[in-house]
Amino acid sequence: MAKGTIFSGMRPTGRLHIGHLSVLENWVRLQEEYNCYYGIVDWHALTTSFQESEGIKDNIKEMLVDWLAAGLDPEKSTIFVQSHVPQHAELHLMLSMITPLSWLERVPTYKDQVQQLSKIGKDISTYGFLGYPLLQAADIMIYRSNAVPVGEDQLPHIELCREVVRRFNYMYDSEVFPEPQALLSKVKMLPGVDGRKMSKSYLNLISLAAEQDEIKNQVNAMVTDPNRIRKTDPGNPDVCVVDKYHGIYVSGEHEGIREQCLKGRIGCVQCKRRLAQELEEQQAPMRERRNKILSSPDYLDDVLAEGAKAARVQAEKTMERVRQAVGI
Amino acid sequence: MAKGTIFSGMRPTGRLHIGHLSVLENWVRLQEEYNCYYGIVDWHALTTSFQESEGIKDNIKEMLVDWLAAGLDPEKSTIFVQSHVPQHAELHLMLSMITPLSWLERVPTYKDQVQQLSKIGKDISTYGFLGYPLLQAADIMIYRSNAVPVGEDQLPHIELCREVVRRFNYMYDSEVFPEPQALLSKVKMLPGVDGRKMSKSYLNLISLAAEQDEIKNQVNAMVTDPNRIRKTDPGNPDVCVVDKYHGIYVSGEHEGIREQCLKGRIGCVQCKRRLAQELEEQQAPMRERRNKILSSPDYLDDVLAEGAKAARVQAEKTMERVRQAVGI
Repeated sequence: MAKGTIFSGMRPTGRLHIGHLSVLENWVRLQEEYNCYYGIVDWHALTTSFQESEGIKDNIKEMLVDWLAAGLDPEKSTIFVQSHVPQHAELHLMLSMITPLSWLERVPTYKDQVQQLSKIGKDISTYGFLGYPLLQAADIMIYRSNAVPVGEDQLPHIELCREVVRRFNYMYDSEVFPEPQALLSKVKMLPGVDGRKMSKSYLNLISLAAEQDEIKNQVNAMVTDPNRIRKTDPGNPDVCVVDKYHGIYVSGEHEGIREQCLKGRIGCVQCKRRLAQELEEQQAPMRERRNKILSSPDYLDDVLAEGAKAARVQAEKTMERVRQAVGI
Repeated sequence: MAKGTIFSGMRPTGRLHIGHLSVLENWVRLQEEYNCYYGIVDWHALTTSFQESEGIKDNIKEMLVDWLAAGLDPEKSTIFVQSHVPQHAELHLMLSMITPLSWLERVPTYKDQVQQLSKIGKDISTYGFLGYPLLQAADIMIYRSNAVPVGEDQLPHIELCREVVRRFNYMYDSEVFPEPQALLSKVKMLPGVDGRKMSKSYLNLISLAAEQDEIKNQVNAMVTDPNRIRKTDPGNPDVCVVDKYHGIYVSGEHEGIREQCLKGRIGCVQCKRRLAQELEEQQAPMRERRNKILSSPDYLDDVLAEGAKAARVQAEKTMERVRQAVGI
């Protein structure tokens, strides 16, 4: 049986942090089973950041390094920048002709995000922002994808994409597009070292590019049970950031550690040392790959050029079928 | 001084009729003063006809023959099909990011047309239809046009285009786009032979491709003063279709003919004979060009291929500046 095809993408927001790793690990696994198209979706970045677009090019490079360091392999997957494949824009335009406005207006994230951002003085009630779930649909459809790895919050967008696929196939009596299935993957949520949401502006995250010292410092800064003064005091792991990380990084021994903490038999310093070690073990091979990548100055450009070339070939094949089905 | 640049386009609705001639004559004149880009805008046809798209390809060819027969010259102007230049779609997408929804919602033709068409059971409240004035703006801007020949009804669209130009240049601190001026041209309105609006469905028009017999028959079918029975009866030219045509085709002698009619000194048959002759004189050289064109089977394809090639070169130059200004 032929391999299925997957598309997924991320906006070029710059360096990734360890909170992004579970998504990337999933992408790395999918490389073995699917033809994967992984796009750095710079046009999507413009939907909300059209006024602060200066950083996009640097962000693309930084994100690409993180992707490759995490194990995405340009020999296995097609890795590219969305705007290097103009067929995404062409398909988006053609799909716009058959997509009722109401379908886009009722996407739950739409009004929500417009409101959220207007609170911080940012006006994104643009034509492009209303259309971004349709641009996502075009991203998926242009490779005739069968499946899309997504988190739960993205399900309404996949549903919209499926509706657009059905409408196109029905309207032009064609079988150009398969209906893509959502591959739901549970994203492991990691808090920032201060217990709040991980965020660049809070300086509370551990970047995927962190050196060993930085990891140690950030783990040491993690908030533990503030009522625990002495090592022998019983601790409350439910309010401890280190505990949340242990749940993911030493899952096999997690219950044991919690019990020892509750009984005052293990100290916070010890817990932190252990976590820092686990994180370092995870990061070390990525750091090695990162350094190798950064030692060949042209490598990143080559990856993106090759990726865009391969993506354009597939995208153009799809557009030829689309133009024929529509009759233009 | 460098020549200015013009873009204008028509939707591929198939054969044109003599009511379209004044627009084409204007385009032909502009060829001498401007770098002209004339586009057959097939994506625009999809905004309202996405459900009846089968005829578009034939319509493109038929319209092209009419354009060339009317005197558009591929040696002087760039004549092309919109969808052959994907940069239109790319610029449209990028402009969508900076264009407030409200600008599009307030275009006067928008709600109007949605309502008009819903009366005949046609639902065009799609994302693409809302965005079509922005697609027009992209059509104009992609060639960095300084001017656009338009009829009065199109003025709000040019105004929108100018607003988008200003917003782009201001937001990205650039001078990529000039603000295009509207070149208002008065369209001479010709009624159908039955006095109603010229329309394919009324069978009341004279096509640009009409042979001499067809011209004669249609002129003979023109409605004149129904109260005039005998040639010597005084006529009322205000209710006479032939009189409307005389106003355009024999304008120098128009007053004299009206006077004779009012006095019952000239008969309807004579008037019609004269008009048919005038029309034939206008059509004959077009017919000759048309036959020449149709005798070289590859000529139309060649014109469109050459035109698209030239248009893509210019469009890509503009997109390079756009991408640089935006920073992607």
